[in-house]
Amino acid sequence: MAYLLPAFAELFPEADVRLQAALGDLQEIDAAVCWMPPRGLLARMPELKLIQSIAAGIDHITADPGLPAVPVCRMVDPDMAAGMAAYVCWAVTNRQRHMYGYVASAAERQWREQPVEAPGAHRVGIAGLGALGVRCALALRAIGYRVSGWSRGPKSGLPADIALFHGDAQRAAFLAGCDTLVCLLPYTPETHGILDAGCYDRLPRGAHLVNVGRGAHVVEADLLRALDSGQLGYATLDTFTEEPLPADHPYWTHPRILVTPHIASRTPARAIARQTRANLAQIILGNAAAVAVDPAKGY
Amino acid sequence: MAYLLPAFAELFPEADVRLQAALGDLQEIDAAVCWMPPRGLLARMPELKLIQSIAAGIDHITADPGLPAVPVCRMVDPDMAAGMAAYVCWAVTNRQRHMYGYVASAAERQWREQPVEAPGAHRVGIAGLGALGVRCALALRAIGYRVSGWSRGPKSGLPADIALFHGDAQRAAFLAGCDTLVCLLPYTPETHGILDAGCYDRLPRGAHLVNVGRGAHVVEADLLRALDSGQLGYATLDTFTEEPLPADHPYWTHPRILVTPHIASRTPARAIARQTRANLAQIILGNAAAVAVDPAKGY
Repeated sequence: MAYLLPAFAELFPEADVRLQAALGDLQEIDAAVCWMPPRGLLARMPELKLIQSIAAGIDHITADPGLPAVPVCRMVDPDMAAGMAAYVCWAVTNRQRHMYGYVASAAERQWREQPVEAPGAHRVGIAGLGALGVRCALALRAIGYRVSGWSRGPKSGLPADIALFHGDAQRAAFLAGCDTLVCLLPYTPETHGILDAGCYDRLPRGAHLVNVGRGAHVVEADLLRALDSGQLGYATLDTFTEEPLPADHPYWTHPRILVTPHIASRTPARAIARQTRANLAQIILGNAAAVAVDPAKGY
Repeated sequence: MAYLLPAFAELFPEADVRLQAALGDLQEIDAAVCWMPPRGLLARMPELKLIQSIAAGIDHITADPGLPAVPVCRMVDPDMAAGMAAYVCWAVTNRQRHMYGYVASAAERQWREQPVEAPGAHRVGIAGLGALGVRCALALRAIGYRVSGWSRGPKSGLPADIALFHGDAQRAAFLAGCDTLVCLLPYTPETHGILDAGCYDRLPRGAHLVNVGRGAHVVEADLLRALDSGQLGYATLDTFTEEPLPADHPYWTHPRILVTPHIASRTPARAIARQTRANLAQIILGNAAAVAVDPAKGY
Protein backbone atom coordinates (compact mmCIF):
# COMPACT_ATOMS: atom_id res chain seq x y z
CA MET A 1 0.00 0.00 0.00
CA ALA A 2 3.05 2.28 0.07
CA TYR A 3 2.00 3.53 -3.37
CA LEU A 4 -0.86 5.40 -1.66
CA LEU A 5 1.41 7.57 0.51
CA PRO A 6 2.00 10.47 -1.91
CA ALA A 7 -1.73 10.74 -2.67
CA PHE A 8 -2.61 10.80 1.04
CA ALA A 9 0.11 13.36 1.71
CA GLU A 10 -1.42 15.58 -0.96
CA LEU A 11 -5.14 15.07 -0.40
CA PHE A 12 -5.49 14.00 3.24
CA PRO A 13 -2.48 15.77 4.78
CA GLU A 14 -3.93 15.88 8.30
CA ALA A 15 -3.99 12.06 8.44
CA ASP A 16 -1.28 10.11 10.32
CA VAL A 17 -0.89 7.36 7.73
CA ARG A 18 0.66 4.06 8.89
CA LEU A 19 1.52 1.06 6.74
CA GLN A 20 0.57 -2.43 7.90
CA ALA A 21 4.15 -3.27 8.84
CA ALA A 22 4.23 -0.44 11.41
CA LEU A 23 0.71 0.22 12.66
CA GLY A 24 1.86 1.16 16.16
CA ASP A 25 -0.84 1.34 18.81
CA LEU A 26 -3.97 -0.19 17.27
CA GLN A 27 -6.13 1.96 19.59
CA GLU A 28 -5.06 4.98 17.54
CA ILE A 29 -6.46 3.71 14.25
CA ASP A 30 -9.63 5.50 13.08
CA ALA A 31 -9.82 4.17 9.52
CA ALA A 32 -8.47 1.06 7.78
CA VAL A 33 -7.73 1.36 4.07
CA CYS A 34 -7.50 -2.20 2.78
CA TRP A 35 -8.12 -4.87 0.17
CA MET A 36 -7.41 -8.23 1.88
CA PRO A 37 -6.77 -7.43 5.54
CA PRO A 38 -5.35 -10.28 7.64
CA ARG A 39 -8.26 -11.99 9.35
CA GLY A 40 -8.91 -10.70 12.83
CA LEU A 41 -6.70 -7.62 12.50
CA LEU A 42 -9.52 -5.08 12.16
CA ALA A 43 -11.28 -6.49 15.25
CA ARG A 44 -8.26 -5.46 17.30
CA MET A 45 -8.79 -1.76 16.55
CA PRO A 46 -11.25 -0.53 19.21
CA GLU A 47 -11.62 3.00 17.83
CA LEU A 48 -12.07 1.93 14.19
CA LYS A 49 -14.77 4.04 12.50
CA LEU A 50 -14.29 3.23 8.80
CA ILE A 51 -13.13 0.27 6.72
CA GLN A 52 -12.33 1.64 3.28
CA SER A 53 -11.83 -0.82 0.42
CA ILE A 54 -9.37 0.34 -2.22
CA ALA A 55 -11.58 -1.17 -4.97
CA ALA A 56 -15.18 -1.53 -6.07
CA GLY A 57 -15.46 -4.91 -4.33
CA ILE A 58 -15.47 -5.58 -0.59
CA ASP A 59 -15.68 -9.37 -0.66
CA HIS A 60 -12.07 -9.87 0.48
CA ILE A 61 -12.88 -7.71 3.51
CA THR A 62 -16.23 -9.17 4.46
CA ALA A 63 -14.72 -12.65 4.19
CA ASP A 64 -13.18 -11.98 7.64
CA PRO A 65 -15.40 -13.87 10.11
CA GLY A 66 -14.26 -11.52 12.88
CA LEU A 67 -15.07 -8.33 11.00
CA PRO A 68 -16.04 -5.63 13.52
CA ALA A 69 -19.37 -3.81 13.21
CA VAL A 70 -17.87 -0.76 11.52
CA PRO A 71 -19.06 0.89 8.26
CA VAL A 72 -17.42 -0.67 5.18
CA CYS A 73 -17.03 1.59 2.13
CA ARG A 74 -16.15 0.64 -1.41
CA MET A 75 -14.61 2.83 -4.11
CA VAL A 76 -16.91 4.45 -6.62
CA ASP A 77 -14.94 6.71 -8.91
CA PRO A 78 -15.51 8.03 -12.44
CA ASP A 79 -11.95 7.07 -13.45
CA MET A 80 -12.58 3.45 -12.46
CA ALA A 81 -15.80 3.39 -14.46
CA ALA A 82 -14.05 4.90 -17.48
CA GLY A 83 -11.20 2.43 -17.27
CA MET A 84 -13.66 -0.45 -17.05
CA ALA A 85 -15.67 0.86 -20.00
CA ALA A 86 -12.50 1.16 -22.10
CA TYR A 87 -11.53 -2.45 -21.30
CA VAL A 88 -15.01 -3.87 -21.90
CA CYS A 89 -15.50 -2.03 -25.22
CA TRP A 90 -12.07 -3.25 -26.31
CA ALA A 91 -12.87 -6.84 -25.34
CA VAL A 92 -16.27 -6.88 -27.05
CA THR A 93 -14.89 -5.50 -30.32
CA ASN A 94 -11.74 -7.61 -30.11
CA ARG A 95 -13.89 -10.69 -30.53
CA GLN A 96 -16.89 -9.33 -32.48
CA ARG A 97 -14.71 -7.77 -35.17
CA HIS A 98 -12.00 -10.48 -35.23
CA MET A 99 -9.38 -7.93 -34.14
CA TYR A 100 -7.21 -10.55 -32.39
CA GLY A 101 -7.17 -12.41 -35.71
CA TYR A 102 -5.89 -9.33 -37.53
CA VAL A 103 -3.14 -8.89 -34.97
CA ALA A 104 -2.05 -12.51 -35.58
CA SER A 105 -2.34 -12.14 -39.37
CA ALA A 106 -0.27 -8.95 -39.35
CA ALA A 107 2.55 -10.81 -37.60
CA GLU A 108 2.57 -13.14 -40.63
CA ARG A 109 2.21 -10.25 -43.14
CA GLN A 110 -1.13 -11.70 -44.19
CA TRP A 111 -3.95 -9.49 -45.49
CA ARG A 112 -6.97 -11.55 -44.44
CA GLU A 113 -10.30 -9.76 -44.35
CA GLN A 114 -13.08 -11.13 -42.19
CA PRO A 115 -16.76 -10.33 -42.62
CA VAL A 116 -17.73 -7.11 -40.88
CA GLU A 117 -20.96 -7.43 -38.94
CA ALA A 118 -22.62 -4.26 -37.76
CA PRO A 119 -22.42 -3.64 -34.01
CA GLY A 120 -26.20 -3.16 -34.10
CA ALA A 121 -26.55 -6.86 -34.90
CA HIS A 122 -24.46 -7.86 -31.86
CA ARG A 123 -26.19 -8.11 -28.50
CA VAL A 124 -24.13 -7.36 -25.41
CA GLY A 125 -25.60 -8.16 -22.01
CA ILE A 126 -24.19 -6.61 -18.85
CA ALA A 127 -24.76 -8.66 -15.69
CA GLY A 128 -24.51 -6.19 -12.82
CA LEU A 129 -25.76 -2.64 -13.21
CA GLY A 130 -23.78 -0.76 -10.60
CA ALA A 131 -21.77 2.33 -11.48
CA LEU A 132 -19.31 0.27 -13.56
CA GLY A 133 -21.99 -1.74 -15.37
CA VAL A 134 -24.01 1.33 -16.27
CA ARG A 135 -20.96 3.12 -17.65
CA CYS A 136 -20.09 0.09 -19.78
CA ALA A 137 -23.69 -0.16 -21.03
CA LEU A 138 -23.74 3.49 -22.08
CA ALA A 139 -20.35 3.31 -23.81
CA LEU A 140 -21.25 0.16 -25.75
CA ARG A 141 -24.54 1.79 -26.74
CA ALA A 142 -22.72 4.93 -27.93
CA ILE A 143 -20.63 2.74 -30.24
CA GLY A 144 -23.79 1.13 -31.60
CA TYR A 145 -23.95 -2.28 -29.89
CA ARG A 146 -27.35 -3.57 -28.82
CA VAL A 147 -27.19 -3.54 -25.06
CA SER A 148 -29.18 -5.20 -22.30
CA GLY A 149 -28.63 -5.45 -18.57
CA TRP A 150 -29.45 -7.75 -15.70
CA SER A 151 -29.36 -6.95 -12.01
CA ARG A 152 -30.62 -8.40 -8.77
CA GLY A 153 -33.35 -5.79 -8.31
CA PRO A 154 -35.11 -3.56 -10.86
CA LYS A 155 -33.18 -0.55 -12.22
CA SER A 156 -34.36 2.65 -13.82
CA GLY A 157 -32.87 5.77 -15.35
CA LEU A 158 -31.20 4.07 -18.31
CA PRO A 159 -32.06 4.90 -21.95
CA ALA A 160 -35.16 3.05 -23.12
CA ASP A 161 -33.29 1.09 -25.80
CA ILE A 162 -31.25 -0.74 -23.15
CA ALA A 163 -33.40 -3.78 -22.32
CA LEU A 164 -33.48 -4.36 -18.57
CA PHE A 165 -33.96 -7.67 -16.78
CA HIS A 166 -33.81 -8.46 -13.09
CA GLY A 167 -33.99 -11.26 -10.60
CA ASP A 168 -33.85 -14.99 -11.02
CA ALA A 169 -37.12 -15.10 -12.94
CA GLN A 170 -35.75 -13.03 -15.84
CA ARG A 171 -32.25 -14.49 -15.90
CA ALA A 172 -32.83 -17.07 -18.63
CA ALA A 173 -34.51 -14.51 -20.90
CA PHE A 174 -31.58 -12.16 -20.39
CA LEU A 175 -28.96 -14.81 -21.14
CA ALA A 176 -30.75 -15.94 -24.31
CA GLY A 177 -30.08 -12.49 -25.80
CA CYS A 178 -26.36 -12.18 -25.01
CA ASP A 179 -23.98 -12.66 -27.96
CA THR A 180 -21.47 -11.28 -25.47
CA LEU A 181 -22.06 -11.58 -21.72
CA VAL A 182 -20.11 -9.17 -19.52
CA CYS A 183 -19.96 -10.13 -15.83
CA LEU A 184 -19.72 -7.10 -13.55
CA LEU A 185 -21.63 -8.60 -10.64
CA PRO A 186 -20.52 -8.07 -7.06
CA TYR A 187 -19.06 -11.19 -5.51
CA THR A 188 -21.39 -12.49 -2.81
CA PRO A 189 -22.44 -15.94 -1.60
CA GLU A 190 -25.35 -15.68 -4.07
CA THR A 191 -23.13 -14.95 -7.08
CA HIS A 192 -20.38 -17.48 -6.22
CA GLY A 193 -20.14 -19.83 -9.22
CA ILE A 194 -22.94 -18.03 -11.09
CA LEU A 195 -21.05 -18.47 -14.38
CA ASP A 196 -21.64 -22.21 -14.58
CA ALA A 197 -22.89 -24.74 -17.14
CA GLY A 198 -26.48 -23.64 -16.50
CA CYS A 199 -25.52 -20.10 -17.47
CA TYR A 200 -23.45 -21.05 -20.53
CA ASP A 201 -26.19 -23.38 -21.81
CA ARG A 202 -28.68 -20.50 -21.83
CA LEU A 203 -26.44 -18.23 -23.95
CA PRO A 204 -26.71 -18.31 -27.75
CA ARG A 205 -24.31 -20.88 -29.18
CA GLY A 206 -20.83 -19.42 -29.73
CA ALA A 207 -21.29 -16.55 -27.29
CA HIS A 208 -18.40 -14.57 -25.80
CA LEU A 209 -17.90 -14.30 -22.04
CA VAL A 210 -16.07 -11.26 -20.64
CA ASN A 211 -15.39 -11.74 -16.94
CA VAL A 212 -14.38 -8.55 -15.16
CA GLY A 213 -16.17 -9.54 -11.95
CA ARG A 214 -14.35 -12.05 -9.76
CA GLY A 215 -12.58 -15.27 -10.63
CA ALA A 216 -14.89 -17.21 -8.30
CA HIS A 217 -17.93 -16.17 -10.31
CA VAL A 218 -16.69 -18.77 -12.81
CA VAL A 219 -16.96 -22.55 -12.43
CA GLU A 220 -13.70 -23.28 -14.24
CA ALA A 221 -14.43 -26.86 -15.33
CA ASP A 222 -17.80 -25.76 -16.77
CA LEU A 223 -16.16 -22.88 -18.64
CA LEU A 224 -13.54 -25.12 -20.24
CA ARG A 225 -16.18 -27.69 -21.20
CA ALA A 226 -18.44 -25.03 -22.74
CA LEU A 227 -15.52 -23.64 -24.79
CA ASP A 228 -14.45 -27.10 -25.91
CA SER A 229 -17.97 -28.02 -27.01
CA GLY A 230 -18.39 -24.76 -28.93
CA GLN A 231 -21.33 -23.66 -26.76
CA LEU A 232 -19.11 -20.76 -25.74
CA GLY A 233 -17.08 -19.25 -28.59
CA TYR A 234 -14.56 -17.20 -26.63
CA ALA A 235 -13.73 -15.95 -23.15
CA THR A 236 -11.87 -12.81 -22.15
CA LEU A 237 -10.90 -13.16 -18.50
CA ASP A 238 -9.38 -10.50 -16.28
CA THR A 239 -9.95 -11.98 -12.81
CA PHE A 240 -9.02 -15.34 -11.34
CA THR A 241 -9.41 -17.21 -8.09
CA GLU A 242 -5.62 -17.29 -7.79
CA GLU A 243 -3.66 -14.24 -8.91
CA PRO A 244 -1.21 -14.10 -10.59
CA LEU A 245 -2.76 -16.93 -12.60
CA PRO A 246 -0.39 -19.92 -12.13
CA ALA A 247 1.83 -20.61 -15.17
CA ASP A 248 0.41 -24.14 -15.55
CA HIS A 249 -3.23 -23.06 -15.54
CA PRO A 250 -5.10 -24.34 -18.63
CA TYR A 251 -6.53 -20.86 -19.33
CA TRP A 252 -3.15 -19.60 -20.59
CA THR A 253 -2.89 -21.98 -23.51
CA HIS A 254 -6.54 -22.37 -24.44
CA PRO A 255 -7.00 -21.13 -28.03
CA ARG A 256 -10.33 -19.48 -27.18
CA ILE A 257 -9.33 -17.75 -23.96
CA LEU A 258 -7.59 -14.41 -23.58
CA VAL A 259 -6.08 -13.82 -20.13
CA THR A 260 -5.34 -10.27 -18.97
CA PRO A 261 -3.64 -9.66 -15.61
CA HIS A 262 -6.47 -8.03 -13.61
CA ILE A 263 -6.04 -4.63 -15.24
CA ALA A 264 -9.57 -3.86 -16.43
CA SER A 265 -9.91 -1.20 -13.78
CA ARG A 266 -7.56 0.10 -11.18
CA THR A 267 -8.50 2.66 -8.55
CA PRO A 268 -6.42 5.84 -8.80
CA ALA A 269 -4.50 6.46 -5.56
CA ARG A 270 -5.74 10.04 -5.41
CA ALA A 271 -9.34 8.84 -5.54
CA ILE A 272 -8.70 6.51 -2.58
CA ALA A 273 -7.18 9.33 -0.53
CA ARG A 274 -9.97 11.73 -1.44
CA GLN A 275 -12.74 9.24 -0.72
CA THR A 276 -11.24 8.00 2.56
CA ARG A 277 -11.13 11.58 3.82
CA ALA A 278 -14.69 12.33 2.68
CA ASN A 279 -16.12 9.09 4.06
CA LEU A 280 -14.44 9.53 7.43
CA ALA A 281 -15.84 13.07 7.63
CA GLN A 282 -19.35 11.81 6.89
CA ILE A 283 -19.07 9.09 9.50
CA ILE A 284 -17.83 11.52 12.15
CA LEU A 285 -20.86 13.69 11.29
CA GLY A 286 -23.11 10.67 11.87
CA ASN A 287 -23.88 9.99 8.18
CA ALA A 288 -22.43 6.48 7.94
CA ALA A 289 -25.45 5.15 6.06
CA ALA A 290 -24.84 7.57 3.18
CA VAL A 291 -21.47 6.09 2.32
CA ALA A 292 -21.30 2.52 3.61
CA VAL A 293 -22.25 -0.63 1.73
CA ASP A 294 -25.17 -2.77 2.82
CA PRO A 295 -23.53 -5.73 4.55
CA ALA A 296 -26.63 -7.89 3.95
CA LYS A 297 -26.34 -7.43 0.17
CA GLY A 298 -22.56 -7.34 0.13
CA TYR A 299 -22.31 -4.20 -2.10
CA MET B 1 -20.09 -6.41 -56.81
CA ALA B 2 -22.03 -9.67 -57.12
CA TYR B 3 -22.35 -9.64 -53.33
CA LEU B 4 -24.86 -6.79 -53.71
CA LEU B 5 -27.35 -8.78 -55.81
CA PRO B 6 -29.41 -10.35 -53.00
CA ALA B 7 -29.78 -7.02 -51.23
CA PHE B 8 -30.93 -5.29 -54.44
CA ALA B 9 -33.35 -8.15 -55.17
CA GLU B 10 -34.85 -7.64 -51.73
CA LEU B 11 -34.83 -3.87 -51.35
CA PHE B 12 -34.84 -2.49 -54.92
CA PRO B 13 -36.70 -5.31 -56.73
CA GLU B 14 -37.91 -3.11 -59.60
CA ALA B 15 -34.29 -2.44 -60.65
CA ASP B 16 -32.70 -4.29 -63.59
CA VAL B 17 -29.31 -4.84 -61.94
CA ARG B 18 -26.34 -5.55 -64.25
CA LEU B 19 -22.80 -6.42 -63.20
CA GLN B 20 -19.86 -4.70 -64.87
CA ALA B 21 -19.00 -7.78 -66.91
CA ALA B 22 -22.41 -7.71 -68.64
CA LEU B 23 -23.68 -4.14 -68.70
CA GLY B 24 -25.45 -4.57 -72.04
CA ASP B 25 -26.60 -1.38 -73.77
CA LEU B 26 -24.98 1.51 -71.86
CA GLN B 27 -27.86 3.78 -72.93
CA GLU B 28 -30.09 1.82 -70.59
CA ILE B 29 -28.11 2.59 -67.43
CA ASP B 30 -29.77 5.09 -65.06
CA ALA B 31 -27.55 4.63 -62.02
CA ALA B 32 -23.97 3.42 -61.53
CA VAL B 33 -23.16 1.79 -58.19
CA CYS B 34 -19.38 1.83 -57.91
CA TRP B 35 -16.15 2.21 -55.96
CA MET B 36 -13.33 2.44 -58.55
CA PRO B 37 -15.06 2.59 -61.95
CA PRO B 38 -12.79 2.15 -64.99
CA ARG B 39 -11.86 5.61 -66.22
CA GLY B 40 -14.14 6.84 -68.99
CA LEU B 41 -16.78 4.18 -68.49
CA LEU B 42 -19.37 6.41 -66.82
CA ALA B 43 -19.03 9.02 -69.57
CA ARG B 44 -20.32 6.46 -72.05
CA MET B 45 -23.72 6.21 -70.27
CA PRO B 46 -25.84 9.02 -71.80
CA GLU B 47 -28.87 8.48 -69.55
CA LEU B 48 -26.89 8.24 -66.31
CA LYS B 49 -28.66 10.12 -63.50
CA LEU B 50 -26.82 8.92 -60.37
CA ILE B 51 -23.32 7.79 -59.49
CA GLN B 52 -23.60 5.99 -56.15
CA SER B 53 -20.42 5.22 -54.22
CA ILE B 54 -20.60 2.06 -52.13
CA ALA B 55 -18.59 3.76 -49.38
CA ALA B 56 -18.26 7.00 -47.45
CA GLY B 57 -15.53 8.21 -49.82
CA ILE B 58 -15.91 9.23 -53.46
CA ASP B 59 -12.27 9.97 -54.29
CA HIS B 60 -11.80 6.86 -56.42
CA ILE B 61 -14.78 8.02 -58.51
CA THR B 62 -13.93 11.69 -58.87
CA ALA B 63 -10.39 10.70 -59.85
CA ASP B 64 -11.83 9.92 -63.32
CA PRO B 65 -10.91 12.92 -65.49
CA GLY B 66 -13.80 12.11 -67.82
CA LEU B 67 -16.42 11.97 -65.05
CA PRO B 68 -19.78 13.07 -66.47
CA ALA B 69 -21.74 15.93 -64.84
CA VAL B 70 -24.05 13.63 -62.92
CA PRO B 71 -24.83 13.75 -59.18
CA VAL B 72 -22.36 11.69 -57.13
CA CYS B 73 -23.66 10.23 -53.84
CA ARG B 74 -21.71 8.70 -50.99
CA MET B 75 -22.92 6.26 -48.38
CA VAL B 76 -23.98 7.59 -45.02
CA ASP B 77 -25.32 4.80 -42.87
CA PRO B 78 -25.65 4.27 -39.12
CA ASP B 79 -24.13 0.78 -39.38
CA MET B 80 -21.00 2.21 -41.02
CA ALA B 81 -20.67 4.80 -38.28
CA ALA B 82 -21.12 2.16 -35.58
CA GLY B 83 -18.55 -0.12 -37.19
CA MET B 84 -16.08 2.74 -37.41
CA ALA B 85 -16.69 3.72 -33.79
CA ALA B 86 -16.11 0.13 -32.65
CA TYR B 87 -12.79 -0.02 -34.54
CA VAL B 88 -11.58 3.38 -33.36
CA CYS B 89 -12.45 2.75 -29.70
CA TRP B 90 -10.69 -0.62 -29.94
CA ALA B 91 -7.59 0.96 -31.50
CA VAL B 92 -7.37 3.80 -28.98
CA THR B 93 -7.65 1.46 -25.98
CA ASN B 94 -5.42 -1.17 -27.57
CA ARG B 95 -2.55 1.28 -27.31
CA GLN B 96 -3.56 3.44 -24.35
CA ARG B 97 -4.11 0.45 -22.06
CA HIS B 98 -1.29 -1.75 -23.43
CA MET B 99 -3.80 -4.37 -24.56
CA TYR B 100 -1.60 -5.62 -27.41
CA GLY B 101 1.11 -6.15 -24.82
CA TYR B 102 -1.21 -8.32 -22.71
CA VAL B 103 -2.11 -10.39 -25.76
CA ALA B 104 1.61 -11.00 -26.38
CA SER B 105 2.29 -11.72 -22.68
CA ALA B 106 -0.60 -14.20 -22.50
CA ALA B 107 0.95 -16.16 -25.37
CA GLU B 108 4.02 -16.55 -23.12
CA ARG B 109 1.92 -17.28 -19.98
CA GLN B 110 3.31 -14.12 -18.43
CA TRP B 111 1.32 -12.10 -15.89
CA ARG B 112 2.73 -8.62 -16.55
CA GLU B 113 0.70 -5.71 -15.24
CA GLN B 114 1.18 -2.30 -16.82
CA PRO B 115 0.20 0.98 -15.21
CA VAL B 116 -3.46 1.82 -15.77
CA GLU B 117 -3.95 5.44 -16.75
CA ALA B 118 -7.45 6.83 -16.60
CA PRO B 119 -9.07 7.45 -20.00
CA GLY B 120 -9.83 10.97 -18.76
CA ALA B 121 -6.09 11.70 -18.80
CA HIS B 122 -5.79 10.61 -22.46
CA ARG B 123 -6.65 13.13 -25.17
CA VAL B 124 -8.04 11.79 -28.43
CA GLY B 125 -8.36 14.16 -31.37
CA ILE B 126 -10.59 13.34 -34.33
CA ALA B 127 -9.57 14.99 -37.61
CA GLY B 128 -12.69 15.06 -39.75
CA LEU B 129 -16.10 15.60 -38.15
CA GLY B 130 -18.45 14.04 -40.69
CA ALA B 131 -20.99 11.41 -39.65
CA LEU B 132 -18.23 8.89 -38.90
CA GLY B 133 -16.03 11.32 -36.99
CA VAL B 134 -18.90 12.56 -34.84
CA ARG B 135 -19.95 9.02 -33.96
CA CYS B 136 -16.38 8.14 -32.96
CA ALA B 137 -16.11 11.30 -30.87
CA LEU B 138 -19.31 10.54 -28.99
CA ALA B 139 -18.36 6.89 -28.37
CA LEU B 140 -14.88 7.78 -27.08
CA ARG B 141 -16.45 10.42 -24.85
CA ALA B 142 -18.96 7.89 -23.48
CA ILE B 143 -16.05 5.67 -22.44
CA GLY B 144 -14.41 8.61 -20.70
CA TYR B 145 -11.64 9.71 -23.07
CA ARG B 146 -10.98 13.44 -23.43
CA VAL B 147 -12.06 14.21 -26.97
CA SER B 148 -11.42 17.05 -29.40
CA GLY B 149 -12.17 17.48 -33.07
CA TRP B 150 -10.83 19.33 -36.06
CA SER B 151 -12.63 20.01 -39.32
CA ARG B 152 -12.26 22.23 -42.35
CA GLY B 153 -15.12 24.55 -41.37
CA PRO B 154 -16.70 25.27 -37.97
CA LYS B 155 -19.03 22.62 -36.51
CA SER B 156 -21.74 22.83 -33.90
CA GLY B 157 -24.17 20.53 -32.13
CA LEU B 158 -21.57 18.50 -30.26
CA PRO B 159 -21.42 18.30 -26.44
CA ALA B 160 -19.58 21.27 -24.95
CA ASP B 161 -16.81 19.13 -23.46
CA ILE B 162 -15.61 18.12 -26.94
CA ALA B 163 -13.14 20.87 -27.85
CA LEU B 164 -13.64 21.95 -31.45
CA PHE B 165 -11.00 23.36 -33.79
CA HIS B 166 -11.27 24.25 -37.45
CA GLY B 167 -9.29 25.45 -40.40
CA ASP B 168 -5.57 25.83 -40.97
CA ALA B 169 -5.24 28.50 -38.30
CA GLN B 170 -6.29 26.15 -35.48
CA ARG B 171 -4.58 23.03 -36.74
CA ALA B 172 -1.39 23.31 -34.69
CA ALA B 173 -3.37 23.96 -31.48
CA PHE B 174 -5.51 20.91 -32.20
CA LEU B 175 -2.53 18.64 -32.88
CA ALA B 176 -0.71 19.76 -29.71
CA GLY B 177 -3.54 18.20 -27.67
CA CYS B 178 -3.75 14.79 -29.37
CA ASP B 179 -2.26 11.87 -27.40
CA THR B 180 -4.05 9.86 -30.06
CA LEU B 181 -4.84 11.40 -33.46
CA VAL B 182 -7.61 9.69 -35.46
CA CYS B 183 -7.69 10.59 -39.16
CA LEU B 184 -11.20 10.44 -40.60
CA LEU B 185 -10.75 13.21 -43.14
CA PRO B 186 -12.17 12.93 -46.63
CA TYR B 187 -9.49 12.40 -49.25
CA THR B 188 -9.20 15.49 -51.43
CA PRO B 189 -6.33 17.35 -53.11
CA GLU B 190 -6.14 19.47 -49.94
CA THR B 191 -5.80 16.50 -47.60
CA HIS B 192 -3.38 14.49 -49.77
CA GLY B 193 -0.29 13.90 -47.61
CA ILE B 194 -1.71 15.86 -44.68
CA LEU B 195 -0.23 13.30 -42.24
CA ASP B 196 3.36 14.42 -42.80
CA ALA B 197 6.37 15.38 -40.70
CA GLY B 198 4.83 18.79 -40.05
CA CYS B 199 1.81 17.08 -38.55
CA TYR B 200 3.75 14.50 -36.50
CA ASP B 201 6.10 17.18 -35.13
CA ARG B 202 3.14 19.11 -33.71
CA LEU B 203 1.74 16.10 -31.81
CA PRO B 204 2.86 15.43 -28.21
CA ARG B 205 5.93 13.18 -28.17
CA GLY B 206 4.98 9.48 -28.28
CA ALA B 207 1.50 10.06 -29.73
CA HIS B 208 -0.54 7.36 -31.42
CA LEU B 209 -1.80 7.76 -34.99
CA VAL B 210 -4.95 5.88 -36.04
CA ASN B 211 -5.46 6.21 -39.79
CA VAL B 212 -8.90 5.17 -40.94
CA GLY B 213 -9.02 7.80 -43.68
CA ARG B 214 -7.06 7.00 -46.83
CA GLY B 215 -3.59 5.61 -47.28
CA ALA B 216 -2.58 8.69 -49.28
CA HIS B 217 -3.28 10.95 -46.33
CA VAL B 218 0.01 9.57 -44.98
CA VAL B 219 3.49 10.51 -46.17
CA GLU B 220 4.99 7.09 -45.58
CA ALA B 221 8.64 8.08 -45.24
CA ASP B 222 7.70 10.77 -42.70
CA LEU B 223 5.60 8.29 -40.72
CA LEU B 224 8.43 5.74 -40.51
CA ARG B 225 10.92 8.46 -39.51
CA ALA B 226 8.59 9.81 -36.80
CA LEU B 227 8.10 6.29 -35.36
CA ASP B 228 11.81 5.54 -35.47
CA SER B 229 12.70 8.79 -33.70
CA GLY B 230 10.07 8.20 -31.00
CA GLN B 231 8.16 11.36 -31.92
CA LEU B 232 5.29 9.03 -32.78
CA GLY B 233 4.83 6.16 -30.34
CA TYR B 234 2.53 3.90 -32.34
CA ALA B 235 0.45 3.77 -35.51
CA THR B 236 -2.68 1.73 -36.19
CA LEU B 237 -3.27 1.75 -39.93
CA ASP B 238 -6.30 0.42 -41.77
CA THR B 239 -5.90 2.05 -45.20
CA PHE B 240 -3.01 2.05 -47.64
CA THR B 241 -2.17 3.51 -51.02
CA GLU B 242 -1.84 -0.03 -52.37
CA GLU B 243 -4.27 -2.68 -51.10
CA PRO B 244 -3.73 -5.45 -50.20
CA LEU B 245 -0.61 -4.00 -48.60
CA PRO B 246 2.34 -5.68 -50.40
CA ALA B 247 4.04 -8.42 -48.39
CA ASP B 248 7.39 -6.61 -48.51
CA HIS B 249 6.03 -3.29 -47.24
CA PRO B 250 7.96 -2.06 -44.15
CA TYR B 251 4.70 -1.42 -42.26
CA TRP B 252 4.15 -5.15 -41.72
CA THR B 253 7.26 -5.74 -39.67
CA HIS B 254 7.57 -2.42 -37.88
CA PRO B 255 7.35 -3.04 -34.12
CA ARG B 256 5.26 0.09 -33.57
CA ILE B 257 2.77 -0.35 -36.42
CA LEU B 258 -0.37 -2.46 -36.44
CA VAL B 259 -1.77 -3.16 -39.92
CA THR B 260 -5.43 -4.14 -40.33
CA PRO B 261 -6.80 -5.05 -43.79
CA HIS B 262 -9.15 -2.09 -44.46
CA ILE B 263 -11.91 -3.45 -42.23
CA ALA B 264 -12.62 -0.49 -39.96
CA SER B 265 -15.94 0.06 -41.66
CA ARG B 266 -17.73 -1.78 -44.42
CA THR B 267 -21.00 -0.65 -45.96
CA PRO B 268 -23.78 -3.20 -45.48
CA ALA B 269 -25.12 -4.37 -48.86
CA ARG B 270 -28.69 -3.70 -47.78
CA ALA B 271 -27.82 -0.09 -46.99
CA ILE B 272 -26.37 0.36 -50.49
CA ALA B 273 -29.49 -1.05 -52.13
CA ARG B 274 -31.78 1.04 -49.93
CA GLN B 275 -29.83 4.25 -50.46
CA THR B 276 -29.42 3.78 -54.23
CA ARG B 277 -33.17 3.42 -54.56
CA ALA B 278 -33.89 6.44 -52.35
CA ASN B 279 -31.29 8.66 -54.05
CA LEU B 280 -32.50 7.77 -57.53
CA ALA B 281 -36.07 8.60 -56.50
CA GLN B 282 -34.95 11.99 -55.17
CA ILE B 283 -33.04 12.77 -58.33
CA ILE B 284 -35.98 11.83 -60.56
CA LEU B 285 -38.11 14.19 -58.41
CA GLY B 286 -35.56 16.95 -59.08
CA ASN B 287 -33.97 16.91 -55.60
CA ALA B 288 -30.41 16.01 -56.60
CA ALA B 289 -28.87 18.68 -54.38
CA ALA B 290 -30.36 17.05 -51.27
CA VAL B 291 -28.39 13.84 -51.72
CA ALA B 292 -25.32 14.53 -53.85
CA VAL B 293 -21.88 15.48 -52.61
CA ASP B 294 -20.38 18.89 -53.32
CA PRO B 295 -17.87 18.18 -56.08
CA ALA B 296 -15.91 21.36 -55.22
CA LYS B 297 -15.30 20.10 -51.65
CA GLY B 298 -15.06 16.44 -52.61
CA TYR B 299 -17.41 15.19 -49.86
